[in-house]
Amino acid sequence: MNKFIRIDMTTLQASVGDVPEKYAGLGGRALTSNFVNDEVKPTCHPLGKNNKLIFAPGLLSGTTAPNSGRISVGGKSPLTGGIKECNSGGTMSQIVARMGIKAFVIEGMPAEDKFYIIKIDMEGVTIEEAPEEILGGCGNYKAIEILSEKYGKKVAIAIAGPAGEYRLPSANISLKDPEGNIRSAGRGGLGAVLGSKKVKAVVIDGTGAGKIEVADPEKFREASKVFAKALLDHPVAGQGLAAYGTDVLVNILNEAGGLPARNFTKGRIDYNDNISGETLNATITERGGEGKVSHGCHPGCVIRCSQWYADKSGKYVTSGFEYETIWGLGADAGIEDLDAIAYIDRAMDDIGVDSIETAVAVATAMEGGLIPWGDGKAVLEIVKDMAKPTPLARIIGSGAAVVGKTCGLFRVPVVKNQAIPAYDPRSVKGIGLTYATTPMGADHTAGYCISGNILKVGADIDPLKKDGQIEYARAMQIGTAAIDSTGMCLFVYFGIADNPAGFQALIDMINAQYGLALTADDVNKLGESVLKVELDFNKRAGFTREDDRLPEFMEYEPLSPHNVVWDFTPEEIDQVMNFDSEGESEELRIS
Amino acid sequence: MNKFIRIDMTTLQASVGDVPEKYAGLGGRALTSNFVNDEVKPTCHPLGKNNKLIFAPGLLSGTTAPNSGRISVGGKSPLTGGIKECNSGGTMSQIVARMGIKAFVIEGMPAEDKFYIIKIDMEGVTIEEAPEEILGGCGNYKAIEILSEKYGKKVAIAIAGPAGEYRLPSANISLKDPEGNIRSAGRGGLGAVLGSKKVKAVVIDGTGAGKIEVADPEKFREASKVFAKALLDHPVAGQGLAAYGTDVLVNILNEAGGLPARNFTKGRIDYNDNISGETLNATITERGGEGKVSHGCHPGCVIRCSQWYADKSGKYVTSGFEYETIWGLGADAGIEDLDAIAYIDRAMDDIGVDSIETAVAVATAMEGGLIPWGDGKAVLEIVKDMAKPTPLARIIGSGAAVVGKTCGLFRVPVVKNQAIPAYDPRSVKGIGLTYATTPMGADHTAGYCISGNILKVGADIDPLKKDGQIEYARAMQIGTAAIDSTGMCLFVYFGIADNPAGFQALIDMINAQYGLALTADDVNKLGESVLKVELDFNKRAGFTREDDRLPEFMEYEPLSPHNVVWDFTPEEIDQVMNFDSEGESEELRIS
Repeated sequence: MNKFIRIDMTTLQASVGDVPEKYAGLGGRALTSNFVNDEVKPTCHPLGKNNKLIFAPGLLSGTTAPNSGRISVGGKSPLTGGIKECNSGGTMSQIVARMGIKAFVIEGMPAEDKFYIIKIDMEGVTIEEAPEEILGGCGNYKAIEILSEKYGKKVAIAIAGPAGEYRLPSANISLKDPEGNIRSAGRGGLGAVLGSKKVKAVVIDGTGAGKIEVADPEKFREASKVFAKALLDHPVAGQGLAAYGTDVLVNILNEAGGLPARNFTKGRIDYNDNISGETLNATITERGGEGKVSHGCHPGCVIRCSQWYADKSGKYVTSGFEYETIWGLGADAGIEDLDAIAYIDRAMDDIGVDSIETAVAVATAMEGGLIPWGDGKAVLEIVKDMAKPTPLARIIGSGAAVVGKTCGLFRVPVVKNQAIPAYDPRSVKGIGLTYATTPMGADHTAGYCISGNILKVGADIDPLKKDGQIEYARAMQIGTAAIDSTGMCLFVYFGIADNPAGFQALIDMINAQYGLALTADDVNKLGESVLKVELDFNKRAGFTREDDRLPEFMEYEPLSPHNVVWDFTPEEIDQVMNFDSEGESEELRIS
Repeated sequence: MNKFIRIDMTTLQASVGDVPEKYAGLGGRALTSNFVNDEVKPTCHPLGKNNKLIFAPGLLSGTTAPNSGRISVGGKSPLTGGIKECNSGGTMSQIVARMGIKAFVIEGMPAEDKFYIIKIDMEGVTIEEAPEEILGGCGNYKAIEILSEKYGKKVAIAIAGPAGEYRLPSANISLKDPEGNIRSAGRGGLGAVLGSKKVKAVVIDGTGAGKIEVADPEKFREASKVFAKALLDHPVAGQGLAAYGTDVLVNILNEAGGLPARNFTKGRIDYNDNISGETLNATITERGGEGKVSHGCHPGCVIRCSQWYADKSGKYVTSGFEYETIWGLGADAGIEDLDAIAYIDRAMDDIGVDSIETAVAVATAMEGGLIPWGDGKAVLEIVKDMAKPTPLARIIGSGAAVVGKTCGLFRVPVVKNQAIPAYDPRSVKGIGLTYATTPMGADHTAGYCISGNILKVGADIDPLKKDGQIEYARAMQIGTAAIDSTGMCLFVYFGIADNPAGFQALIDMINAQYGLALTADDVNKLGESVLKVELDFNKRAGFTREDDRLPEFMEYEPLSPHNVVWDFTPEEIDQVMNFDSEGESEELRIS
């Protein structure tokens, strides 16, 4: 991997060069965040010509390492105004890596008001006008089909859905998965950045790509085997996720009193059976669905958590049907029916909006009186309306913070303008620290403290108490930043958290591929350096510690059933990103 | 003036106490900003229970000093998230001051979802439920009539219109003027704060109030006479404003190439005659209008700039029909007809939304394709729809920044989320520095550099050049903060800028009233101290110097006809609020 591609949408020219020396050892989030911090003016308008969008496979992407097929996308977020990395499955990461491409960057903005397709193959880059039929409201499912028809079934595709074309702040970047369905680089509105650059889609044709060069193939093979075993041996990664998907968490969080319901007014629901992973599993098993139950979001996945949800007649509705989406629509917005939620999930993928931001925006709008509580039909119509957005569809598509403004609410569950996902910080305090302090805006994947707080994987920390949470949230964010740089799916954490052999195997794979001799400490240092770069960008963009705060209402509205409030002081919160004090937390590091 | 009233909407109790010692020498903006900085948690949600709203007449309000009837309202702004002071004419300031009330504060938030009227008279405070008929969409004109009927024709009224009830971020606080019409504490959404506290209106009955005690009545009378003469002798304050209103500026700014048109894409229009002050004057003169032409917005005004605009049959349509409103709808949104603009102005007053924020939001929405360019009928309907807000009405009522989000625009003319008014900073560079650096968000009244840049009053600085602008913008903001603390209308600047006797008379009045011996230097120190307090609040709320920036597009989109961009560097902008360097600008101070 040594090609570094720049596509200038102002001149409609591209250049393929060698990767700059300083980025040679980086991949995934480490690469995107360093690049954004180096080249994007922190105070630029995210939708203006000075923002840049970078796509980078991880350090292990393209290899035979299990679960290494995530692609990172970076830029300045139109939702938060800060730096953003979001990563996704799909087929792109592996193909791009095998083509020897370290990263491709989209910059500038065309003068003319038309949309383009960027096509990258082994010959180079071509920029052509997008076909009319996939513009102006065409859903992602159909557009991906048309592009696959035109460019070949095996091409990888990243596309801006209608939401991205209209530059709605919740627009995601949708990626074609192995079945031709949709995965999402979901959070923070990078689809709007793609749309602002008038790029409808990036099509990658890997025909002629070779294999990734591996410095020590034997060592790599061996480590890879150990790593796969570590994943499959773990009860969650090896069995639970495949059977129930991430939706297994509905009952777990409900039991823990940490399932935010009715716009974060309570932490438990009584209709959890309607939307639980167990019910999801039973429904899928009963309905069949083209012979599929679970599947992987990218080639090489051994966990296969993605659920394949069909309607009563067995016809595919949606996949990648995640807990956070089901929580948002089911518990937070009170839509008590899994089928209704599935159709909305499909519509969100089709339009290209982040399903967490949109679900929380919907629940906030319900509190604001714009939509009746629990009305799945109304929500489905609003999401579909984003194809040619009505004013209401624009409000919802702009995210929960904008909904809060238009409805004059103070109960708005966002941090840095990004919606708080499926775990209430009052009753799962560790994740609250991640929401508050990650440079990404509220994001559970930035430091998944649910692990040690609720699942008791990697740590065992009382979710209702403050003890140990600061060091834990710091360590989890550091570890996550490192994992996000490898191209690995975050769920590999289950294979390394309590399994020293699994963790060593991950490091061995990197060492074997690059001919290095990294230690666990180096991996942590990498994670820490990524966070520092991201914090530097945000600081220069005007963020301060005052942005590292949860919504004020959580400080004085107790959450049932535990009747707890968010009680970390500002000074305590600020310790999370105080890396100088990390010495204390040695034992909590992912090593 | 020694009463300090606190109204707690949580308990529905009020207390009348003595003014705290530290506020005794303060009035108007100096008092509201110090209070907000002392008592409002800077990171609180502006619409939550921890925000507070304070009303304070100025140091000279209630006296016979000409033009001293402005009332300051302070709080944390739902629009900017920073400190806010906005002041307004109307009858409230003089009455409150004569009742001996230094300030009244509204805090807390009731548990029940119903609206209240706060009534203050010489006996104290009563809190009663608001009559149903003025709620849920009733316009301000009718509501003021009903309240005047109920509480007496002479009561002063501050009211949250429908926009305030719905807590839209552009909601203003409307004040009854001497004719029973409407003036506005317009900018920054303080009407939404009033609405969040479930206060529909504050009614002040001054029956039984005495006169203001004056330490040296003879000196006061003398100074007051000199001051009135200084105002009336100035061609602008004495004649221009009464004849043409502030709308006299349309032709002046158009000529200067500083009249932002079509969402700030150009600096000059060719239909200026349709909307100019000259045309306004001719129309008013021709139509009559209940015998009125110009009038004062508060008792004691000698300038009488407020225009009384009638329809073709001579029936009153609107008053306080200002240049900034006419510019926003006429030039920025391209509505080329003065009658159409007048009806929209009336509707904005009736709904209770800031006419600058709303007009700019409209123009931004036109760029975003939500409203056809120049369509006055559509705009009138949208504003009227705010009475029971449709989604589109909510978007517009949330201000230009939210419009920009929902439309995915990067050309959004706001600073600190507040809309930039009627003077393009690229071709009138001094005012650009005020927009960028005032703690209020873009606000021409915070340091009206149009004066020395365009009108050549008080200074003569080339508007197209950077020379001298930094010191000038600093001095104007300091002077303005002082004037805003006196209860004086900002137009008194015309009587003091180039007239040492006028300026001395203003100081003499304050000294005569309070038995003090202030000098010009003390007045400047007061202004500086007010700004410092405001900057302190904003800093603690999380603002940084990066918030002191104009929209990025102005840095690279040249404005016709002069083809100039905004070219102050961040370092230069940051000098404006660097008070340590003020020694250089001695000659530019308002003294």
